[in-house]
Amino acid sequence: MAATSTPVAPLVPAHPESGEPVRALVWDGGVEGVLRYLDQTLLPHEALERLATSANDVHAAIHRLAIRGAPAIGIAGAYGLVLGARPHVQASPSEFLLRLDEVAEHLIRCRPTAVNLAHAIRAGVARARAAAQNGARSPRLLAELLVAAQQLHADDERCCAAMGRIGAELVRDGDAILTHCNAGALATGGTGTALAAVYAARAAGKRVQVYADETRPLLQGARLTAWELSRAGIPVTLLVDGASASLLRTGLVAAVFVGADRIAANGDVANKIGTLAVALAAREFGVPFYVVAPTSTIDLATRSGEAIPIEMRDGVEIASARGVPLAASGASHWNPAFDVTPARLVTALITERGLVRAPDEAALRAHLS
Amino acid sequence: MAATSTPVAPLVPAHPESGEPVRALVWDGGVEGVLRYLDQTLLPHEALERLATSANDVHAAIHRLAIRGAPAIGIAGAYGLVLGARPHVQASPSEFLLRLDEVAEHLIRCRPTAVNLAHAIRAGVARARAAAQNGARSPRLLAELLVAAQQLHADDERCCAAMGRIGAELVRDGDAILTHCNAGALATGGTGTALAAVYAARAAGKRVQVYADETRPLLQGARLTAWELSRAGIPVTLLVDGASASLLRTGLVAAVFVGADRIAANGDVANKIGTLAVALAAREFGVPFYVVAPTSTIDLATRSGEAIPIEMRDGVEIASARGVPLAASGASHWNPAFDVTPARLVTALITERGLVRAPDEAALRAHLS
Repeated sequence: MAATSTPVAPLVPAHPESGEPVRALVWDGGVEGVLRYLDQTLLPHEALERLATSANDVHAAIHRLAIRGAPAIGIAGAYGLVLGARPHVQASPSEFLLRLDEVAEHLIRCRPTAVNLAHAIRAGVARARAAAQNGARSPRLLAELLVAAQQLHADDERCCAAMGRIGAELVRDGDAILTHCNAGALATGGTGTALAAVYAARAAGKRVQVYADETRPLLQGARLTAWELSRAGIPVTLLVDGASASLLRTGLVAAVFVGADRIAANGDVANKIGTLAVALAAREFGVPFYVVAPTSTIDLATRSGEAIPIEMRDGVEIASARGVPLAASGASHWNPAFDVTPARLVTALITERGLVRAPDEAALRAHLS
Repeated sequence: MAATSTPVAPLVPAHPESGEPVRALVWDGGVEGVLRYLDQTLLPHEALERLATSANDVHAAIHRLAIRGAPAIGIAGAYGLVLGARPHVQASPSEFLLRLDEVAEHLIRCRPTAVNLAHAIRAGVARARAAAQNGARSPRLLAELLVAAQQLHADDERCCAAMGRIGAELVRDGDAILTHCNAGALATGGTGTALAAVYAARAAGKRVQVYADETRPLLQGARLTAWELSRAGIPVTLLVDGASASLLRTGLVAAVFVGADRIAANGDVANKIGTLAVALAAREFGVPFYVVAPTSTIDLATRSGEAIPIEMRDGVEIASARGVPLAASGASHWNPAFDVTPARLVTALITERGLVRAPDEAALRAHLS
């Protein structure tokens, strides 16, 4: 199937320094299509496009972080439903839906912290189920899954553009901003969340430079943020995570922009491990701390940050880098993938709908209504 | 000369898990002796002892961080004076002192942040100069330099033991402590500064475990702290620097213990980059933050942290680990080796003379008088 797909535009623009972001993933074809994605585990050393032709391919790509970033894994999960349900298109609608539920559960369990994955998959399943209740046959249910995924993808692209426009208003010509992890084009179906503001500011003619925490253990800042910004011609300066407090003290940074994997009802923000330390330093040194995330990241069913499940990952991520052992062999490891930044440390939340200053439960509920 | 030195006890104890710390360096022989040291750039993968037989050897070892840690580089610098002055032992005392000044200036410029190196070297030079004023000839001046270095080394060993005793009183049976960088035996002429408290608590029969920040970019926590503690049989758990704020929030950690490279008159503490973020999180989550350092680290001539020169190091330290490229190639780098923790974030300073709660200029002057 992979070999017969008609190529679409490459994920990495042919011309570097164009200001144009890369793309994390694209669906290639109709219901018989495949998911094409950049293997982010190989970046920046190699920009390899891979094909996912089954739900297991998608599960593996998300699990090993070849596809990562809350919005991007939601979109990939939605396409994964198509790939996982497709082999059952000859079955009865009820059998098709049974199989779909199995695929959905398998994909949802892949990464527990981001709420987008579960949201996207449940939305796809609900759409197929509604069509079945209206008497549709299995091929139609499969088509509905693809429509759901493509709408989600297109919505995310529009969300990124909207967040970029709103965020860019906070960036002045000549500003330097600090970011953590990768909340860019590689993390979404569009131009990013936090970095959407940078791309949009640049597109509006503002000079902007980015300080990027390298973001241990998996170095999403050093590998992904530095790569996608450099490739778009936006100046980027890397620092170790431990240096961001000192950087914020210098006054060189106008604002911090980060993404989010889940936002609780009270405004607490789960994001990549290390975000909390940046938020504490930003408050200490009077630098605005902006969280940029689509409203789909807000989970009103989760009261506060304490209720957000935090994925613990293997210690080998700390003990080595690119397969090279870094650490003494006798040690244990404590490796949470995310941390929770209390809402009180967030200057404002930026979603595709607008800006929420000092987000709390009342403000979030009002913003979503 | 190296080949003819008589071996003394190895720097790494033959029996692991003995609770006995390793040693960073030892002088081997009399005025014709050599400096033996563990090459800390190779740890934990290889525990290689090297010999320094010239001041240039010592300069290179300090510069490339084969010998590191403020007390240890002070001691190495003092031995470096012996090695650098020795070729001029046939010269007149005035010529000897001229050459000594050249060696001293070369060594002092090696690393600017730690005050111990400059102190140690100026003390050695002053001792030789005093002997010359009393009519001593060059061989005697050389012998005085060795006595100065060996006294400094013995003093540091006693300081470590004293800091350990005082610090251990703050550690209860069963406690977990968090540390940053390596402030252990590998950083000093004895059992360490921050980790001296751990070794002393263990020697006093207390169960103690250590959480160690990996400490990017040079991974002193992952490579050195994890190695020396594991080797002594003390449980150690590694985390990425960005995770320490989350760890402090959990309540698992009873206290933070860190070392210092320089303490200003007002109590501001220069230490390895990343310390400031740990201090901010410790205050936020109510965990005591202890700085353990000999009084020689206190520099009353430096009013506050802003006046401490911060060494900026090459970006290649961020862009790679053990020679393996980690980061995208288009990025710049911002790589300060140290940061400054304001005195107000320090719960107490522990020196060989005792404990100073809430250190400020008055308290430090009283402590030193």
